[in-house]
Amino acid sequence: MGEKSNKASQNAGQVVDGPTNPMVTPLLTDLYQFTMAYAYWKAGKHNERAVFDLYFRKNPFAGEFTVFAGLEECIKLIANFKLTEEEISFIHQSLPGSCEEGFLHYLREIDCSDVEVYAISEGTVVFPKVPLLRLEGPVAVVQLLETPVLNLVNFASLVATNAARHRLVAGKSKMLLEFGLRRAQGPDGAIGASKYCYIGGFDATSNAAAGRLFGIPLRGTHSHAFVSSFMGHDEILERTLCSSDGSSTCEDFVALVQSWLRKIQLLKSLGGTFGDTNQSELAAFISYALAFPNNFLALVDTYDVMRSGVPNFCAVALALDDLGYKAVGIRLDSGDLAYLSCEARKIFHIIEKEFGVPDFGKTAITASNDLNEETLDGLKKQGHEVDCFGIGTYLVTCYAQAALGCVFKLVEINNKPRIKLSEDVSKVSIPCKKRCYRLYGKEGYSLVDIMTGENEPCPKVGERILCRHPFSESTRAYVVPKRVEELLKCYWPGKSGKERQELPALKDIREYCIRQLEQMRPDHIRRLNPTPYKVSVSANLYDFIHFLWLNEAPVGELH
Amino acid sequence: MGEKSNKASQNAGQVVDGPTNPMVTPLLTDLYQFTMAYAYWKAGKHNERAVFDLYFRKNPFAGEFTVFAGLEECIKLIANFKLTEEEISFIHQSLPGSCEEGFLHYLREIDCSDVEVYAISEGTVVFPKVPLLRLEGPVAVVQLLETPVLNLVNFASLVATNAARHRLVAGKSKMLLEFGLRRAQGPDGAIGASKYCYIGGFDATSNAAAGRLFGIPLRGTHSHAFVSSFMGHDEILERTLCSSDGSSTCEDFVALVQSWLRKIQLLKSLGGTFGDTNQSELAAFISYALAFPNNFLALVDTYDVMRSGVPNFCAVALALDDLGYKAVGIRLDSGDLAYLSCEARKIFHIIEKEFGVPDFGKTAITASNDLNEETLDGLKKQGHEVDCFGIGTYLVTCYAQAALGCVFKLVEINNKPRIKLSEDVSKVSIPCKKRCYRLYGKEGYSLVDIMTGENEPCPKVGERILCRHPFSESTRAYVVPKRVEELLKCYWPGKSGKERQELPALKDIREYCIRQLEQMRPDHIRRLNPTPYKVSVSANLYDFIHFLWLNEAPVGELH
Repeated sequence: MGEKSNKASQNAGQVVDGPTNPMVTPLLTDLYQFTMAYAYWKAGKHNERAVFDLYFRKNPFAGEFTVFAGLEECIKLIANFKLTEEEISFIHQSLPGSCEEGFLHYLREIDCSDVEVYAISEGTVVFPKVPLLRLEGPVAVVQLLETPVLNLVNFASLVATNAARHRLVAGKSKMLLEFGLRRAQGPDGAIGASKYCYIGGFDATSNAAAGRLFGIPLRGTHSHAFVSSFMGHDEILERTLCSSDGSSTCEDFVALVQSWLRKIQLLKSLGGTFGDTNQSELAAFISYALAFPNNFLALVDTYDVMRSGVPNFCAVALALDDLGYKAVGIRLDSGDLAYLSCEARKIFHIIEKEFGVPDFGKTAITASNDLNEETLDGLKKQGHEVDCFGIGTYLVTCYAQAALGCVFKLVEINNKPRIKLSEDVSKVSIPCKKRCYRLYGKEGYSLVDIMTGENEPCPKVGERILCRHPFSESTRAYVVPKRVEELLKCYWPGKSGKERQELPALKDIREYCIRQLEQMRPDHIRRLNPTPYKVSVSANLYDFIHFLWLNEAPVGELH
Repeated sequence: MGEKSNKASQNAGQVVDGPTNPMVTPLLTDLYQFTMAYAYWKAGKHNERAVFDLYFRKNPFAGEFTVFAGLEECIKLIANFKLTEEEISFIHQSLPGSCEEGFLHYLREIDCSDVEVYAISEGTVVFPKVPLLRLEGPVAVVQLLETPVLNLVNFASLVATNAARHRLVAGKSKMLLEFGLRRAQGPDGAIGASKYCYIGGFDATSNAAAGRLFGIPLRGTHSHAFVSSFMGHDEILERTLCSSDGSSTCEDFVALVQSWLRKIQLLKSLGGTFGDTNQSELAAFISYALAFPNNFLALVDTYDVMRSGVPNFCAVALALDDLGYKAVGIRLDSGDLAYLSCEARKIFHIIEKEFGVPDFGKTAITASNDLNEETLDGLKKQGHEVDCFGIGTYLVTCYAQAALGCVFKLVEINNKPRIKLSEDVSKVSIPCKKRCYRLYGKEGYSLVDIMTGENEPCPKVGERILCRHPFSESTRAYVVPKRVEELLKCYWPGKSGKERQELPALKDIREYCIRQLEQMRPDHIRRLNPTPYKVSVSANLYDFIHFLWLNEAPVGELH
């Protein structure tokens, strides 16, 4: 598990840690990958060199962009891909009918030392049809990788994209916290969501395990249960609190808070808003402040936000201020978040002014409670005073669209290009081992992605190139790129002798992803009616696709 | 990991294996559980005895029932709950500000030996508001359990319910296969889905890792890539096939298949349906049959189902029949599944008749391709000949509703009942440590669930009892139960000395779940406009809820 894992491989002369989740083993695949491996082996085809592309056909969330994530975990799987004796014996039992001993011996031998992996960098903004990964190697081995690699990329990219969309609608200035552990789809649905939401632009998580595994900043204070577990002040036995600078001690912090509460209640500028507050709530707040005087953040909606939670918070915050501590803020977890945040902000400003507490007006307001892209957008339009959003269920389960449809298609075997046909044109695969480029225009935005055959010349800066839609004859455009970026890099060289691209640190992936989004033309990433980004093929590749298509498709007969 | 795990606990005198996923540790919780633990500890409240209920408020998928799952994993977590030094040191760094040494010592000491867990049996059909689990113990420890237990129950119950709904619409006679690994929300989103779909009534999975961990039957044959990896018959080097009984050997199985293909093409009763089929597809089918002569199942839609896939399948199947092997069937993965299955069935019947092959008409037809509850229902209404459905994305990601909203609420502390209020009545918690019963009527169906205070007498068979809606004054009914079942059983006794309910085997949970669904009144589980099942409280509990509510709620002031 992360830094604890000692499972590493010397494949291709490189040491790479094992997958974060120890359940990710070569057995985490569909049974049919093993039945096919046996059939390939029986036919003597298992070592034929195959090229597979992993790509998706449609951006999620009715959007026009996707954030690619999950690459690091794929490489960790591939680097350490080795079946155990126990796994081989399980496969032996599981294959229908009997299989020959020689196949079991073959399974013992296989690893990914002869597999090459080319991939787009993790955190890149990507588009339909362009391969995110290209795997080359013995057909039987690469087929075994199909399912786990799809599993590791599909959800990772989906939830990173979801996080990026939440960030885009919330704006750069807001703090975004991922709070999804309890509602996520299983333990590492949660851990994965924490990791990939961080990549997509979230600032922190509540998930302690994810904090430890990945170094993601952690956030969290207390729940409603903490508040309702208190009955009254008599439960607070230890009432002293040392001042922030250690110079003095308040002997009865409870009394200090209560004196501030009375002052607040008497404030004319609050127009008599505050009557009696809930005293068990106040006891909970005081207890929490005594434990964390430097980090007092109170959940204020257990009983009544404006009549109890906010004045109780203010009384404790002002008492802390007397001792040199600065309260962090409040959290709202129900009700009309726009209205309540504005009302709370007003009171913070009044208190700043009336009691001369600098910056009290800027006290942080956190909001949670079933937030999603739509509610964030709604809050923004309505106007609110929230500084920080805690987002759970809708973010981590990708409630608006719970799956991304990445597929893994054979594009070449034994140097012969292969195509998968379908009555649905969007499902026809783009054959051949390809190179993929992103072409940038003079304003710095990317204009188009283009796929070419492996041996075609690279598009050149300043030279006109024809970009064709892969399946629509009349859709094409000349582009003169100001910058050309090759998208697929070698992340696992196999026996090719190529240099292996290093896996960047999570923080660097996150920063790269944020920069990527900043560099996108705004109309591609906007929420409403985004413009589709253009994905094209070279003229040569276009011609070849259509030659192969006609060659493979059966000719209909009308009677 | 399952049988491999040696992590076990002697707590409460019981040995229980650790969680299936080794990432499930006490650190898999929200940071705020630790900040609260520290605040409880600082206030000297950490050992106060608290009772928490875990329940959901609304059935998923617009239905009126839920299948409870995830209990075994909860008990495995609880039985082995112990923080490591490394975890404690991570918590120490992660708490905001400094914490006292004594707290770290406290963290070293805690386990669940003083926690009691009462739960409804895994696989039971359950309803909103009724506690699925009740956890009692020191408040700080039980709070630490909140997040992981919610995580382990929420997705498990959601996906088991989704599987049960797919089973209900497909009918008992169909074979249902879970094919979701590649699209699931992460590695153990997939493994969990395989486990809980099996509980909910699926027959098998494609996920080899889940097969090994849980003993779930595995299914899988080959993909489109296998078919398109073949170019022609010259790739088939080894062409001999021994007959099923070992009495003879066919020296050229390829030639035998080709002779059958010609016979099929010449069949008058097929009306000249078949022209030339795709020969690379035929080569792939022959190779697969040579590897698995007893388990020949072919994916027939790579090129064209009716013009190529089905006749190629039939030719191989008839050649196998010559040698005493019975082909299993075909899989359709695109197109109009209802139409194609009916057309394929017709051809199978014609071949049975024309060539006198017994039962060829019953050749199995499997369908896959983005199936869900709606499409299964649509196929049924349209009429089809599919025997077996492979269901992936929509099933395992619970696409129609990606999260279940189980909550974990404090209902009692130090023997004092607690209530969580809300402006939204459906969010008000039901206070008190409770007992829960299911009351059955004379037809054997369950009539109503009722919650009572811990010390109220148990409802008696043949005695009239008043069942009240917890929040609606006028909704109530007298019930005379024919059978009374107590729902919450002791799965982890802590120090209570009670007997621990054994965790049943997965297969037994599955069978119990299937029986449970059979025993439900059909109108509660139907897809369209299902009738809500009644959940009630006793008259005493009703009165107490409303007494406490008035006590805690602030009184409004109108100006």
